[in-house]
Amino acid sequence: MNFRIEKDTMGEVQVPADKLWGAQTERSRNNFKIGPPASMPLEIIYGFAYLKKAAAFTNCELGVLSEEKRDLIARVCEEILAGQHDDQFPLVIWQTGSGTQSNMNVNEVIANRAHQIAGKTIGEGEKTIQPNDDVNKSQSSNDTFPTGMHIAAYKKIVETTIHGVIQLRNTLHKKSQAFQDVVKIGRTHLMDATPITLGQEFSGYVSQLDHGLKALENTMPHLSELALGGTAVGTGLNTPDGYSELVAKYIADFTNLPFITAPNKFEALAAHDALVGTHGALKQLAVSLNKIANDIRMMASGPRSGIGEINIPANEPGSSIMPGKVNPTQCEALTMVCAQVMGNDVAVTVGGTQGHYELNVFKPMMAANVLQSAQLLGDACMSFDEHCAQGIEPNHDVIKQLLNNSLMLVTALNTKIGYYKAAEIANTAHKNGTTLKEEAVNLGYVTAEDYDAWVKPEEMVGKRNK
Amino acid sequence: MNFRIEKDTMGEVQVPADKLWGAQTERSRNNFKIGPPASMPLEIIYGFAYLKKAAAFTNCELGVLSEEKRDLIARVCEEILAGQHDDQFPLVIWQTGSGTQSNMNVNEVIANRAHQIAGKTIGEGEKTIQPNDDVNKSQSSNDTFPTGMHIAAYKKIVETTIHGVIQLRNTLHKKSQAFQDVVKIGRTHLMDATPITLGQEFSGYVSQLDHGLKALENTMPHLSELALGGTAVGTGLNTPDGYSELVAKYIADFTNLPFITAPNKFEALAAHDALVGTHGALKQLAVSLNKIANDIRMMASGPRSGIGEINIPANEPGSSIMPGKVNPTQCEALTMVCAQVMGNDVAVTVGGTQGHYELNVFKPMMAANVLQSAQLLGDACMSFDEHCAQGIEPNHDVIKQLLNNSLMLVTALNTKIGYYKAAEIANTAHKNGTTLKEEAVNLGYVTAEDYDAWVKPEEMVGKRNK
Amino acid sequence: MNFRIEKDTMGEVQVPADKLWGAQTERSRNNFKIGPPASMPLEIIYGFAYLKKAAAFTNCELGVLSEEKRDLIARVCEEILAGQHDDQFPLVIWQTGSGTQSNMNVNEVIANRAHQIAGKTIGEGEKTIQPNDDVNKSQSSNDTFPTGMHIAAYKKIVETTIHGVIQLRNTLHKKSQAFQDVVKIGRTHLMDATPITLGQEFSGYVSQLDHGLKALENTMPHLSELALGGTAVGTGLNTPDGYSELVAKYIADFTNLPFITAPNKFEALAAHDALVGTHGALKQLAVSLNKIANDIRMMASGPRSGIGEINIPANEPGSSIMPGKVNPTQCEALTMVCAQVMGNDVAVTVGGTQGHYELNVFKPMMAANVLQSAQLLGDACMSFDEHCAQGIEPNHDVIKQLLNNSLMLVTALNTKIGYYKAAEIANTAHKNGTTLKEEAVNLGYVTAEDYDAWVKPEEMVGKRNK
Amino acid sequence: MNFRIEKDTMGEVQVPADKLWGAQTERSRNNFKIGPPASMPLEIIYGFAYLKKAAAFTNCELGVLSEEKRDLIARVCEEILAGQHDDQFPLVIWQTGSGTQSNMNVNEVIANRAHQIAGKTIGEGEKTIQPNDDVNKSQSSNDTFPTGMHIAAYKKIVETTIHGVIQLRNTLHKKSQAFQDVVKIGRTHLMDATPITLGQEFSGYVSQLDHGLKALENTMPHLSELALGGTAVGTGLNTPDGYSELVAKYIADFTNLPFITAPNKFEALAAHDALVGTHGALKQLAVSLNKIANDIRMMASGPRSGIGEINIPANEPGSSIMPGKVNPTQCEALTMVCAQVMGNDVAVTVGGTQGHYELNVFKPMMAANVLQSAQLLGDACMSFDEHCAQGIEPNHDVIKQLLNNSLMLVTALNTKIGYYKAAEIANTAHKNGTTLKEEAVNLGYVTAEDYDAWVKPEEMVGKRNK
Repeated sequence: MNFRIEKDTMGEVQVPADKLWGAQTERSRNNFKIGPPASMPLEIIYGFAYLKKAAAFTNCELGVLSEEKRDLIARVCEEILAGQHDDQFPLVIWQTGSGTQSNMNVNEVIANRAHQIAGKTIGEGEKTIQPNDDVNKSQSSNDTFPTGMHIAAYKKIVETTIHGVIQLRNTLHKKSQAFQDVVKIGRTHLMDATPITLGQEFSGYVSQLDHGLKALENTMPHLSELALGGTAVGTGLNTPDGYSELVAKYIADFTNLPFITAPNKFEALAAHDALVGTHGALKQLAVSLNKIANDIRMMASGPRSGIGEINIPANEPGSSIMPGKVNPTQCEALTMVCAQVMGNDVAVTVGGTQGHYELNVFKPMMAANVLQSAQLLGDACMSFDEHCAQGIEPNHDVIKQLLNNSLMLVTALNTKIGYYKAAEIANTAHKNGTTLKEEAVNLGYVTAEDYDAWVKPEEMVGKRNK
Repeated sequence: MNFRIEKDTMGEVQVPADKLWGAQTERSRNNFKIGPPASMPLEIIYGFAYLKKAAAFTNCELGVLSEEKRDLIARVCEEILAGQHDDQFPLVIWQTGSGTQSNMNVNEVIANRAHQIAGKTIGEGEKTIQPNDDVNKSQSSNDTFPTGMHIAAYKKIVETTIHGVIQLRNTLHKKSQAFQDVVKIGRTHLMDATPITLGQEFSGYVSQLDHGLKALENTMPHLSELALGGTAVGTGLNTPDGYSELVAKYIADFTNLPFITAPNKFEALAAHDALVGTHGALKQLAVSLNKIANDIRMMASGPRSGIGEINIPANEPGSSIMPGKVNPTQCEALTMVCAQVMGNDVAVTVGGTQGHYELNVFKPMMAANVLQSAQLLGDACMSFDEHCAQGIEPNHDVIKQLLNNSLMLVTALNTKIGYYKAAEIANTAHKNGTTLKEEAVNLGYVTAEDYDAWVKPEEMVGKRNK
Repeated sequence: MNFRIEKDTMGEVQVPADKLWGAQTERSRNNFKIGPPASMPLEIIYGFAYLKKAAAFTNCELGVLSEEKRDLIARVCEEILAGQHDDQFPLVIWQTGSGTQSNMNVNEVIANRAHQIAGKTIGEGEKTIQPNDDVNKSQSSNDTFPTGMHIAAYKKIVETTIHGVIQLRNTLHKKSQAFQDVVKIGRTHLMDATPITLGQEFSGYVSQLDHGLKALENTMPHLSELALGGTAVGTGLNTPDGYSELVAKYIADFTNLPFITAPNKFEALAAHDALVGTHGALKQLAVSLNKIANDIRMMASGPRSGIGEINIPANEPGSSIMPGKVNPTQCEALTMVCAQVMGNDVAVTVGGTQGHYELNVFKPMMAANVLQSAQLLGDACMSFDEHCAQGIEPNHDVIKQLLNNSLMLVTALNTKIGYYKAAEIANTAHKNGTTLKEEAVNLGYVTAEDYDAWVKPEEMVGKRNK
Repeated sequence: MNFRIEKDTMGEVQVPADKLWGAQTERSRNNFKIGPPASMPLEIIYGFAYLKKAAAFTNCELGVLSEEKRDLIARVCEEILAGQHDDQFPLVIWQTGSGTQSNMNVNEVIANRAHQIAGKTIGEGEKTIQPNDDVNKSQSSNDTFPTGMHIAAYKKIVETTIHGVIQLRNTLHKKSQAFQDVVKIGRTHLMDATPITLGQEFSGYVSQLDHGLKALENTMPHLSELALGGTAVGTGLNTPDGYSELVAKYIADFTNLPFITAPNKFEALAAHDALVGTHGALKQLAVSLNKIANDIRMMASGPRSGIGEINIPANEPGSSIMPGKVNPTQCEALTMVCAQVMGNDVAVTVGGTQGHYELNVFKPMMAANVLQSAQLLGDACMSFDEHCAQGIEPNHDVIKQLLNNSLMLVTALNTKIGYYKAAEIANTAHKNGTTLKEEAVNLGYVTAEDYDAWVKPEEMVGKRNK
């Protein structure tokens, strides 16, 4: 492999000749061989690209950076955002806890690529753009990394998580309406209970997701606060007047998202409660989705020896010989995602507790977990929606049979023949393994016609939430 | 011990003669000997008392309960709320997951006590009030327990958690203002960094708690939704028209808290995402408080070999012989509480995932954890406030010494003598273990007067968040 | 209330006259009003009683304590262990993280009670026994509290956890043998699969618990290591030669448990990985028990619209009118306990990470969680065993019906009539909602006799683990 | 892109022409677009390669597979293990919870590649090797996936985790010995305490890691149990006699690791407590490493305003201008890993609780988390060792200064001049900010010579654990 020499304040480093990064990136690559390379999420790199461009515009507008440099920096940022340099960010999550080295990775790539754009050869001549003095101007790792991670997380949640959850929510809502007259046996403690409609059950799922979306949205204002402008310790040392507000405005413009400058930069560097809060809401959604997926796989269980009240789409061979063995694979994928999100929540929580003085140094880990949870939840909702929820259909025969077999319907007879006779009917049916109707008639308490007229499950499900 | 005979649908049970509870409570006492007795939080019992009284008023107003019975029930509920019957609720958290037996415990105590109030002897004569038919009228365990736990949690959070956190927040805010001119060394990565004021550091804590309080408040609307009126499966079977809304209104009146009837009763029985969400916010507060307490104990460490920038009150003997050994015991109590809350969050989360069909049967465990976290956080904030935060004082001598010793101040000379000479001064001071000023003068780059004029830490802390 | 004056190095304190505790206990009571009073587990107090007695014997044997003082101290320790002074330990978990104040509580109670035993009045005359100089001789809070918590945890695990788990394990083993010929449908992905015996299913549970018990036992040697003898920082300053080994021997003798002195006292004070490890094993048991309880409640679900393959005991009224509504309340209690243990594991883990230098100051919280988990798991296993597991019986009719209805049995025909005809039979039965036998005969591929001869589920369950 | 047609029991699927996988893999790729592609760990694929080869040998030896087929299958497995087909496994973790589709992915790749090796063109002619009938012979997804994940986890822990932890442990042990005479101030509650040696502190770390390694090793026997031979539900249906034991023996031979066949196959399919247990031990190691890394970064803090008792290597630029700003970046990376492992533990735990009947369907998620934790911990230990621990050196000047400044040394005078005079000296020094020696002499209680003779910190550190 060919190398070129790059320098930083510690001295010279050999860097692969075909790479845009510089000395500090290369040091980090060698010092942190922990897990697979390039684990630092690209979303954070893109967050950096937005903020580096915004900083260049702000610095220029406030008179501390030339227009030429601004434009060069901006152009490379756009290339990065277009995915042209995805292979130039080899660093891992498990590096400096402030993410300094990923900040430098971005600075170095921008500077070297700008040098190329300016028609020069990397490693030759004076740098057209200095990674520290120009690209990182009015910035510090300590305020750029949390800014980059807020941008990345906010975008991911809006574009992937909320998008996916809403799509699933809407399907469940449609199903709730479509199933509003499908009366079935209710179950509490996993035991038979009074009737309910399938639509009512699904309305509960919709309500869960609506509450979960609301919970997630409640956390977004905190996440919209950007640390940029705090520099090293939150005081904003070495930033021009008006920098914080202006750079946040540029970021909001470039991303088309409502970012603002954090009112308190000390919190914004030293604590990441915004990530803790947002992940808490993601975890709440995971809890809801787990309940929903569990219900659906239990209701779809069978085909002969389970509950079998609904059918779900068969997306892959379940059993080569047994027809009807439709494994609830989307439920399985979704609940595995939920378990992961619950675990990630603890990682984010633990990281959040450990800020010391002016800096929390669990940033990359916290950000990576938030991004993973946000991605997995959104994707899993989409997958579950498209390959399972949309295709859910009631198995009317089974539903009807289980409902009519049920002994809970006897409560409808209380007002007609009295509690004791009703209970006697139920007991006899239970003992004999027969239906209520059979025993009601056998015992001579009710005619078949009366039974049908009086025992109407559809009148036991109320008018709520149809 | 003397016993009397109580009956339920399974038959007769011996109950201690001096107790107000009945057969089902006694069965549960015997069937669930798990952990210490009476672990079911009294707050939930009180929540039940509010709702039983509200149900009595509602049932009466809707024409299904007599005024006499209403008044008897209400009177016992008031006695319960006055703490007169605290020893009548012997059941444990680890019972039926719907909390059925605690609902019956309340029903039985109310009925038996009403019998007493009516001038009769428990166990003799027809019951004045029936536990099922009267006290539990228009109710089910499945909708009463979640109602009781929402009432309990909402009250606890308002009265204890928010109260305690705000008190601490206000003290920290006062300290932030009082310390706004105390310039000190900043620290990132636990290493010396550019200056900051002690007031700025404390402003970060205030910002954390403000965000945490906001996060907690965001969860309260979900928690204000009451399941009551859903009865067994959410359909509201066996409730009179208008019951749900009216009973919620009564509960709101009696508690003076903004409770409403849950728009979706199916969710309200089968899922407890409201508890998950609220506990998530409690956990966020725990994360914030952990950071704050850690900072304070590190800043107070010493007296000689630590950081020693602040003094905290000495509340108990630290060392019998060593003066100044003031252990940060309030920080320790608070961070232990934070760890417990982080653990409780997982318990609540796991419980939240496991609703099946129409019912979640992890109710008592979830409620008990929310109540414990809410109590501990509120109490620990009060304790920390009164016995630590209020007494925090800067140790000005140490702060000044550490600041002036710091090598980071050299950055103030960059613009005066150039980066390279400034760096040379810092390096020499680092090598020799001397101060910047000494070496600046020794090297002949700066006079002592110029040094003092140029190196002003108080000008390096910005204007933010003073 | 009457008070007397007690003193410590900070001065005078008013203490309730009828209490045995002294100044430091009273200070702690006032300084740490966090959660309910007296939350410090009594098991830890008893652990202290063992170690104080052992220290007195060791100090005497090594010539630094008189026999008279030894005997007085020992006598009070025995009174404490007999439960005579349970109301003398009012402190909370949420105190100094080293548990110093509970150590002092014990020292003060022993000293004052010894004074009484010596025929004197507390608060009058010179103390017969000094809490610090005599009771705490050759000790520090820093080595006594971790010793006390190891004694408490070890005892609890042996006497309650292991005892309870083994009792349940043995019942499940008996059931496994009793059910070894009960052939039933297997289920994977909640879907029908090839047959299995109920005994085989239960053998899996037994295997889980056997592995869990082994995992728990593997952690006991670390837990048997006692910190005593390390004193303040682990160096053993102020202990006589041979103290550590001898005091551990006395504790082993008094408790009849295999305690040893920790080979490394620095670890024993600064880290509590032994508690982390032990709780990890408790959590593994919780995972196993959760699986078992879930299976049992699903198999017992019904009575009409669930799986219904087993019957479990009816311990309390399920539904006033519906016979056969036997709620799986013991499963619910047990799985709530499991969720709590999973949460406690995180609390213990977080506490375990936060030792600083020579001391971990999350001791009381960690110990309380280990004790709670150990108690709850043991109790819940006993309760589950006595009120559920012992009474589990197969519902042979349902098992047979589900098995014979199953389409998976068709695999038995593969070798007789070929894969394609077998699949055709299954498909036809699935489409028509009929049985395999009906369609096999209808399609003319098999006679009824051959079907019965060839399709023998009991020959599809292997010979393993019967 | 070019495609070819592949078939399974559901029909035809278009597969990229240059890929070796078949219909079921392609279906899964399309049905589970959750997170980045190919997230299923390659280690599990390699685990499959071992087991498929072992199954081929076993099937051949037991007479149900030809030698030709055995050799073809084995050859492809070896190619997979050599990393030649890493790009042929595009599936994600978030698929069927039994990992069925990854099993089929391996089966399909082996069959198609064998077809190529046999000189034929994929998609043309009859398959030389059938993915189901040959490659999967005597197997089911339900027993292969857990076998593959046990192989993968066991190898990873032996080769990466244990290897890395031992390397770090040995360095810390060397440091402990090298530092055995470096007497320093001890600290408890972060406050000054009696002296200790730096070597003693490090011996505590070694003891933690020794206990952690022991805990991890204790879990390996359970992890060595292989499910293979259980087939679909644990009964071993469709396996030849002797299959389980023989196939485990082949796997043990091929991997050179002590794998055995699981004594209870029902547990091995339906529960993954072995993973729960092993991850619990990984978490214990994370707890220990977190404590160690925290201590080291606090002791290295400074350079001027921190503790500064040790120096750690400078691996990357800390501050461009401030010398001595050596950020504890390896501590940060390591503690981020620890937080991740704590989170992963919850994910594994939650997954472990949710087996239903004969199958746990959280397998891929559980396995992926165990593998990630095992990898990260091992790598992070290596990185921490090479880039931090090996280079730790005491800062003797600071250590001596802090020690001599300490007021805790006054305890050494107790026996010489009495407690009260000693306390007076300490109090005066504390008030005046002076040293004990100065005030001891000033107060006239001790001569300077006596002070030096009597106050010898090196005699206060005991003889333990040097």
